[in-house]
Amino acid sequence: MRKVAIVGGSGYIGAELAGLLVNHPGIAIADIASHTHAGSMVADIHPALSAFTDLRYCKSIPENSEAELVFVATEYGSSMEQVPGFLARGMKVIDMSGDYRFTDAELYQKWYGIQHKDPDNLKSRVYGIPELFRARIPGARLVANPGCYPTGSILALAPLLRAGLIDPSDIIIDAKSGTSGAGIQPSAFTHHARCAQNIEPYKIGTHRHMPEIASVLGEASGREVDVTFVPHLTPMVRGIELTIYTRLARPAEPREIVDAYSQCYAGSRFVRLVQSIPTVPAVAGSNFCDIGFAFSGKDRLVVVAAIDNLVKGGAGQAVQNANLMFGLDEAAGLWFPGMGV
Amino acid sequence: MRKVAIVGGSGYIGAELAGLLVNHPGIAIADIASHTHAGSMVADIHPALSAFTDLRYCKSIPENSEAELVFVATEYGSSMEQVPGFLARGMKVIDMSGDYRFTDAELYQKWYGIQHKDPDNLKSRVYGIPELFRARIPGARLVANPGCYPTGSILALAPLLRAGLIDPSDIIIDAKSGTSGAGIQPSAFTHHARCAQNIEPYKIGTHRHMPEIASVLGEASGREVDVTFVPHLTPMVRGIELTIYTRLARPAEPREIVDAYSQCYAGSRFVRLVQSIPTVPAVAGSNFCDIGFAFSGKDRLVVVAAIDNLVKGGAGQAVQNANLMFGLDEAAGLWFPGMGV
Amino acid sequence: MRKVAIVGGSGYIGAELAGLLVNHPGIAIADIASHTHAGSMVADIHPALSAFTDLRYCKSIPENSEAELVFVATEYGSSMEQVPGFLARGMKVIDMSGDYRFTDAELYQKWYGIQHKDPDNLKSRVYGIPELFRARIPGARLVANPGCYPTGSILALAPLLRAGLIDPSDIIIDAKSGTSGAGIQPSAFTHHARCAQNIEPYKIGTHRHMPEIASVLGEASGREVDVTFVPHLTPMVRGIELTIYTRLARPAEPREIVDAYSQCYAGSRFVRLVQSIPTVPAVAGSNFCDIGFAFSGKDRLVVVAAIDNLVKGGAGQAVQNANLMFGLDEAAGLWFPGMGV
Amino acid sequence: MRKVAIVGGSGYIGAELAGLLVNHPGIAIADIASHTHAGSMVADIHPALSAFTDLRYCKSIPENSEAELVFVATEYGSSMEQVPGFLARGMKVIDMSGDYRFTDAELYQKWYGIQHKDPDNLKSRVYGIPELFRARIPGARLVANPGCYPTGSILALAPLLRAGLIDPSDIIIDAKSGTSGAGIQPSAFTHHARCAQNIEPYKIGTHRHMPEIASVLGEASGREVDVTFVPHLTPMVRGIELTIYTRLARPAEPREIVDAYSQCYAGSRFVRLVQSIPTVPAVAGSNFCDIGFAFSGKDRLVVVAAIDNLVKGGAGQAVQNANLMFGLDEAAGLWFPGMGV
Repeated sequence: MRKVAIVGGSGYIGAELAGLLVNHPGIAIADIASHTHAGSMVADIHPALSAFTDLRYCKSIPENSEAELVFVATEYGSSMEQVPGFLARGMKVIDMSGDYRFTDAELYQKWYGIQHKDPDNLKSRVYGIPELFRARIPGARLVANPGCYPTGSILALAPLLRAGLIDPSDIIIDAKSGTSGAGIQPSAFTHHARCAQNIEPYKIGTHRHMPEIASVLGEASGREVDVTFVPHLTPMVRGIELTIYTRLARPAEPREIVDAYSQCYAGSRFVRLVQSIPTVPAVAGSNFCDIGFAFSGKDRLVVVAAIDNLVKGGAGQAVQNANLMFGLDEAAGLWFPGMGV
Repeated sequence: MRKVAIVGGSGYIGAELAGLLVNHPGIAIADIASHTHAGSMVADIHPALSAFTDLRYCKSIPENSEAELVFVATEYGSSMEQVPGFLARGMKVIDMSGDYRFTDAELYQKWYGIQHKDPDNLKSRVYGIPELFRARIPGARLVANPGCYPTGSILALAPLLRAGLIDPSDIIIDAKSGTSGAGIQPSAFTHHARCAQNIEPYKIGTHRHMPEIASVLGEASGREVDVTFVPHLTPMVRGIELTIYTRLARPAEPREIVDAYSQCYAGSRFVRLVQSIPTVPAVAGSNFCDIGFAFSGKDRLVVVAAIDNLVKGGAGQAVQNANLMFGLDEAAGLWFPGMGV
Repeated sequence: MRKVAIVGGSGYIGAELAGLLVNHPGIAIADIASHTHAGSMVADIHPALSAFTDLRYCKSIPENSEAELVFVATEYGSSMEQVPGFLARGMKVIDMSGDYRFTDAELYQKWYGIQHKDPDNLKSRVYGIPELFRARIPGARLVANPGCYPTGSILALAPLLRAGLIDPSDIIIDAKSGTSGAGIQPSAFTHHARCAQNIEPYKIGTHRHMPEIASVLGEASGREVDVTFVPHLTPMVRGIELTIYTRLARPAEPREIVDAYSQCYAGSRFVRLVQSIPTVPAVAGSNFCDIGFAFSGKDRLVVVAAIDNLVKGGAGQAVQNANLMFGLDEAAGLWFPGMGV
Repeated sequence: MRKVAIVGGSGYIGAELAGLLVNHPGIAIADIASHTHAGSMVADIHPALSAFTDLRYCKSIPENSEAELVFVATEYGSSMEQVPGFLARGMKVIDMSGDYRFTDAELYQKWYGIQHKDPDNLKSRVYGIPELFRARIPGARLVANPGCYPTGSILALAPLLRAGLIDPSDIIIDAKSGTSGAGIQPSAFTHHARCAQNIEPYKIGTHRHMPEIASVLGEASGREVDVTFVPHLTPMVRGIELTIYTRLARPAEPREIVDAYSQCYAGSRFVRLVQSIPTVPAVAGSNFCDIGFAFSGKDRLVVVAAIDNLVKGGAGQAVQNANLMFGLDEAAGLWFPGMGV
């Protein structure tokens, strides 16, 4: 068993990581840290894990940790203060915060509002979508795990851009997220009475995932990509549904769209091209990204994608990356269907 | 008190009409018909109305009805078979189905899949959005009450098109509806276990409200308008949230956008231009349409609108039209705030 | 117009009061105070009220306020510090906190954990359920507005106890509340991701509303009443559904149960005895309490009641009390049906 | 791999069975039948299963089926027409309908309203709660898989009754179910607009699970048990939360309650006694039954239990029974934590 540690282990992403790893055939948790809950049993804070682990939260990863790899699931800003230390100790790192998602420190500063403290590692980090950057991940020391919205958006758009099928300057992503995407910390925004009968757009044109999507799509397709992105908080708990409006670069048959996805995702078991409309229930609790599409009007191509934000959009994809970094089967511990209902 | 009748009075729109009218200061229900529940007390079928009415559902509006005006809240297809008869009896009609929303019988046939049986009345019908067509309504014999999606979409877009601020060929409406919009009839689509943790796009590029929006916007603005429209079923019960993506026709200041709305809706009490993002809870249960906007990127203008689909998007707007047809205050029986939470 | 003030006007109860009063035919808001939002427009904090009020929140009710009556909608503990001052200024008070719901200061201290600071007024306060204590309310200077759970529980049980139909020592109340009952302040308990797919019992046997129910039922029936009470947080926003398990004191016909309610609530327009099962949608947004019942087994009588916790369980009942205190029609500003859906 | 068949494979229970079995280490699906969807790919009807199975629904289990065991997940009434045939073919059967849950054909007729067609097999069937009847299951030819409500109710109560801690004549079960418990067939009862903001008690004192609970508890404890049972439909999709009101037979310490559970469930990995209040999110998607308790008043013991109705309350427990019947590890294919959120 390969040993790993989790920092920020009491939030939703940390708990989801723990839930995946307590049953993983090739990876075990050596240490799990939480500032808030240091000293508590993991299973007392997250009772779904009762009977699966006797671990207690530690305050920080001990010096003598057996972990070879650390999942850093803290807030942005805090993450880049810790990552260099883990790397210096010879550990591999999968960073779940936003700190390593841009390669450009200035772009980071523009969108996160603080100066980057570890610009050196920005250049060498690998962006952790295995379906697009699989070859780079096994050798990576530092993987930037993608944001939840970017995961589905990039998977839905990259094949079309690579194939030159859509106009890279006319892309609109209308994203609908479950509230678990906002994290475990209560706020007015996620107060049940406010959001249970509400679909609320927020950060219109200002969300940090917008430049993340644009820059990674640019990297993946070799084109300059412009994206309009509006996220919405919805009364789902888990899941992201993406309705993406593109304009065809030239007339295209459905077959060509299918081919673009099939070529790009041959051998990628966690992307499913579906004939019906992808929905969250089909992927909830699983590591799949379902993608479908429909034409509208004379030249609009509407692409729909669905993921579980905590799994493929978070902890599941991180485990998928860890599997590759450890030389394990990419799907180890992740091969199970979604909830359905 | 002016007397009215309701046909199709046991569905959600019919019940909402009844709920508004039992308390209306100037209008009273003379007869209310329902095929399904003929003979039953209205309050037994819709217990929210207990203590407000002793009416029973009749099978059809009696010949000697005292009603001067009929709300026809049946399915499309059935409506156009009944409307000519009511008009022939000298009654005014507000049609809640889709049968009279197009002026062009061929367009109707294309989108509704059946031949129109009352093409003569299509030409003279008035489209019932008072905020845009107020002058025509008092004299109308037949008002086509707008669809729920079109109401918010048209109110949000018409002022911008009239002012020439946005490109009429580049409009995308991403619409999120509560499930009451699908009516009272159970179906797989509205089965709770399927839709409670789900945001499901449907009828992409094929929904009948798309050409309704485009044609009315064309009528309202004198321009040819092209609209991409994708509705979504969401876990709200009431309400529609619209996120509308437009492209500015020329650089514009926020002030100009505000002015376009203010000029168009001066004297229209049920449209509120809000500085924050409009949300469903602020309008739920009320006849308001809240509108807000934000810029994104170099030339995108994102407009957000919220209505209660059963009130401003249905029964409330119908009462507003009836008020005008009766020469009453437009807001009579409708002037109350939304639920808030 | 009679003038009133609201203290604690930015919470859910305060906003609901404001929403009812901006449209009230006989009562107007003179001043509305909020520590959190002093200086802000009420309509900016609660956009459902836009177009209905230009009031701004003040920090505290001014010395020269025109208000004759104050609704105190603050936290318990804070309320009893303010109420004596308002009374001393000659104002009437309707207290929405728990501070005046017990007549016994020791009982208060036992359940609220703090010493009562205004024991003198406890004796003379009137408990504000008009259906049971209507005669006392017009002359009251201080009305204790009931808790949300007690309102429905007491209305459902008092007639049966008065009639001697049920065993006062064997009563179990299983209560299901919407999350608005927990107030506007975010917490882990009301975090959407936690409570949206969850029905969570809390404070089993320790909730303050349990002794409130028991003591008022004792007062209303002249019997010593023992109640087991378990509240549940549920994914509704508004509403309380009560399933109450009683044991018949003697064999009884359905007619006798109906008679007990009919006699007790003759002339009480806001209590409706229904033949079907009462549900929250039928009362949501309204001031009604719907009550129904069914027999089970050899001697169990199951009583079901539904209210809107913010209206009949809060602001609506307070306005009902204010109407009586002002000599207005008890239903003034409150006579409208629930949402239905 | 042991081969099984599923009859009624397109409903929620059938799909959940399929989802568990496509990943099971020791059991494979040979045939899966559905009247409604015969000929369709399973994964087209239940897209969560895409990539996991290429099976098509057959109309009925073929004569040459390789299955050794059949899960019969059809409606009651239909099941008892098929079960004798499967048994005659030498197959083992796990019946998911209500047809074999009573041992007494007259009791069946009283509660299901139809005559039992296979009374012979009623006597020898084993009731499939492994935690209480584990020894009987490996040798059983016919296992009656318990109802969803009975599973949690019986697990929560049997140990207390066996230990003589509670009064068997004073038990009230207030049950709250997610809507998936009502099955995949749409109805007015499960229409989203009706049930999304609603907690609706139904079949008060008349639900078939009430005598099932009472009779099995009687069998498990050797006492005559009387149960008042009121189920509620709630806006959860998955899960049952049970609040059970009992009266202590004698004064008892918490330790004695804990001991009763510990002794009864030693070696039962799927029952977890928790110190906090059990909730649905902790068990959703898993085969666990979480149980907790609190004292109230002088002699009330309130027991709370939570399960996933489709897993421990349905398909999961059926697989657990199949594992035992095949001599596999009881937890094979079932050992994974719940969703948490």
